[in-house]
Amino acid sequence: MEGDKRPDKLRVAVLGCGSVGSQVVRLLQEQSGDLAARVGVPVELAGVAVRRLDAPREVEVPADLLTTDATGLVTRDDVDLVVEVIGGIEPARSLILAALENGASVVSANKALLAEDGPTLFEAAEKAGRDLYYEAAVAGAIPILRPLRESLAGDRVTRVLGIVNGTTNFILDKMDTSGAGFAEALEEAQELGYAEADPTADVEGFDAAAKAAILASLAFHSRVTASDVHREGISEVTAADVQSARDMGAVVKLLAICELRADDRGEEAVAVRVHPAMIPRSHPLASVREAYNAVFVESEAAGQLMFYGPGAGGSPTASAVLGDLVTVARNRLARTRGAGESAYADRAVLPMGETRTRYHVAIDVDDRAGVLATVAAAFAEHGVSIQTVRQEGRDDDAQLVVVSHEATDAQLSATVEHLRGMDIVREVTSTMRVEGEQE
Amino acid sequence: MEGDKRPDKLRVAVLGCGSVGSQVVRLLQEQSGDLAARVGVPVELAGVAVRRLDAPREVEVPADLLTTDATGLVTRDDVDLVVEVIGGIEPARSLILAALENGASVVSANKALLAEDGPTLFEAAEKAGRDLYYEAAVAGAIPILRPLRESLAGDRVTRVLGIVNGTTNFILDKMDTSGAGFAEALEEAQELGYAEADPTADVEGFDAAAKAAILASLAFHSRVTASDVHREGISEVTAADVQSARDMGAVVKLLAICELRADDRGEEAVAVRVHPAMIPRSHPLASVREAYNAVFVESEAAGQLMFYGPGAGGSPTASAVLGDLVTVARNRLARTRGAGESAYADRAVLPMGETRTRYHVAIDVDDRAGVLATVAAAFAEHGVSIQTVRQEGRDDDAQLVVVSHEATDAQLSATVEHLRGMDIVREVTSTMRVEGEQE
Repeated sequence: MEGDKRPDKLRVAVLGCGSVGSQVVRLLQEQSGDLAARVGVPVELAGVAVRRLDAPREVEVPADLLTTDATGLVTRDDVDLVVEVIGGIEPARSLILAALENGASVVSANKALLAEDGPTLFEAAEKAGRDLYYEAAVAGAIPILRPLRESLAGDRVTRVLGIVNGTTNFILDKMDTSGAGFAEALEEAQELGYAEADPTADVEGFDAAAKAAILASLAFHSRVTASDVHREGISEVTAADVQSARDMGAVVKLLAICELRADDRGEEAVAVRVHPAMIPRSHPLASVREAYNAVFVESEAAGQLMFYGPGAGGSPTASAVLGDLVTVARNRLARTRGAGESAYADRAVLPMGETRTRYHVAIDVDDRAGVLATVAAAFAEHGVSIQTVRQEGRDDDAQLVVVSHEATDAQLSATVEHLRGMDIVREVTSTMRVEGEQE
Repeated sequence: MEGDKRPDKLRVAVLGCGSVGSQVVRLLQEQSGDLAARVGVPVELAGVAVRRLDAPREVEVPADLLTTDATGLVTRDDVDLVVEVIGGIEPARSLILAALENGASVVSANKALLAEDGPTLFEAAEKAGRDLYYEAAVAGAIPILRPLRESLAGDRVTRVLGIVNGTTNFILDKMDTSGAGFAEALEEAQELGYAEADPTADVEGFDAAAKAAILASLAFHSRVTASDVHREGISEVTAADVQSARDMGAVVKLLAICELRADDRGEEAVAVRVHPAMIPRSHPLASVREAYNAVFVESEAAGQLMFYGPGAGGSPTASAVLGDLVTVARNRLARTRGAGESAYADRAVLPMGETRTRYHVAIDVDDRAGVLATVAAAFAEHGVSIQTVRQEGRDDDAQLVVVSHEATDAQLSATVEHLRGMDIVREVTSTMRVEGEQE
């Protein structure tokens, strides 16, 4: 790029040749004609870094393109573009930094790294004057980062609600349609390949939290990292919770929620969290079935938008990688770079206790006169207003199902603690947040 | 842009101050701080071209910014960016061409012009080295053109199914939920402001056909104009058609359909059409209610994606215009331009008769033995294979509902003609295409 001559081709190094990397290599080979036409010059594979040269692969890679020396590959003089699909923090971070320093443009699918240490990478890209694109890091094939970065750049995004983890959506959907419990649904997901043998990263919400941090950063032009995200997984969701949601015309989903909210001084802050929540069946996200992903965006001028598609898988993720690759390649030929990090708004992250949410609380109580009034008083004592309450008698006890109006999460959890200590309360059988309705 | 100095601000001329233009002006004023931060320099309003200076407007525009001399405005030396939201062919086309020739970058929401004469505009933009962006021309606020142009640039799009006209979706949704006929539903749409007094452009599919041409051009990297689009509106859709769709678990939608198909020599061609069609209720497009829009995209690597949101309205459309404006402004500061027209694939457009579709045909027949065999023979004679047939006896006549497999549209319409001429056929009560299912 420093020379005057427009290059007659661009050369790509691919780091990692697992389920995504092998599909990237396949598409680079199969679509080479279209890619050349769309970029302006041919895009050639310069090399593929792997851990073991003799590992079985989904795609045939010429032996002379395979290498175990990833650092050597990304610092080669003839590499213009680097695709990082290794995942994890190291060595991915060092390789991306080395690639940028060497003058390459980078496309990454690495949500964990972007969410933990994005600013380090963005600053390195800025300093090098090169692109760092990462559409594939959130919601697989679904174009969502580019719409947030570019299409909505003239609007004011106020909320993002995302189903961004396919494993948990498959499990919750199974629980909803079959009445199965969590353990049974997880087992089925594992049998079908939707969940890993160790499902922790998915079911405990770590994967979704990384994506929430990335979405919140882009939506609100502020730095948000994974450690800023309040995170609860779905392993405590019971068949009774799912049934209780059904009873109120709702469905349980694991949501990544990013909101613009006023803090207690009235300043705009970012509230970002991942937890299971009940949403009305009429909400567009409610119809997202099986392992599909979707991201619902609310903005002041555009209103409500939704982006839907496959959130994972080698081939869909590779589609997102290749889309970025075409853009950074075009930018390179034009001797320019796309918009870098946008963190000018520099908004604070609201602590979870101050975040305003709504609760659905199911309570087994003694079936005697005045019980509803006593429970309602407990909500009132903590400043929580009740939206609806449903009472069902069952032999000598009764169940109350309360849905609150918005209150701070701290007020709501204090209310639940209070309820648990009351004589007339036998058990708080379910507490879950409620999302997706206008107050 | 010819000088060496980076400009310290960019100036925008807005052509038209109707429902979209007034919202563009409002957002430019209200979001000026955010726009400056996102673009890099302030974006100022240079002027607003209107037909009448004293017309009532939704937004307050300083009197010295209003002008009736649109040509004078777009050729001013200090105008960097031009937003065209007048609509229609002329004077919009001449103004855009003048703006580009004068060195301005252009953002347009003009679907009719882009679909009729896009190539003239693209060539002018190419020659001037300036941007022409038009996200707002299709599906209002929904980011769909940018995903097709950029996010899916490394993939191979094979089909686009869009609900891209809010008026007709509102009418069909009303017919589906209330059992109303077309005339009654149209009247309600008019009362609620979803349909114009003269609803022809919407209900006869002209609006959707323009958008289909734009979508097909981008999806298949080929020039497709409005005149290439086979177009049928919804004014012939009856309450009986809608009921018949319900009976088979489907819903009637006006679809813009763009497909990559082999022509009779086996070459890839573009099939593009707008017509009412039955789609299964399980299809993601089936749940698009009221005046919302959605575009469903199938591509080889990404699989199935859907983009959903408000397809019209001043404020949503202005959001899309402003998103483009931020991009073209950034490009201008970087002394570059985004990707221009991509028509390298240069695929032919398949005549409607050769396009492969499926038909749903409801036939009133004499209720006598052998009638089904006779009707089936008529389908077979034209080479049309039947997928399902349902027979319902009613007094002395019977109704047959036939759903065909895919055949050319010519074969299917010949079959229907044949049926109409048969003695045992009293009436072909409904014919409608069936979409959204895998064969």
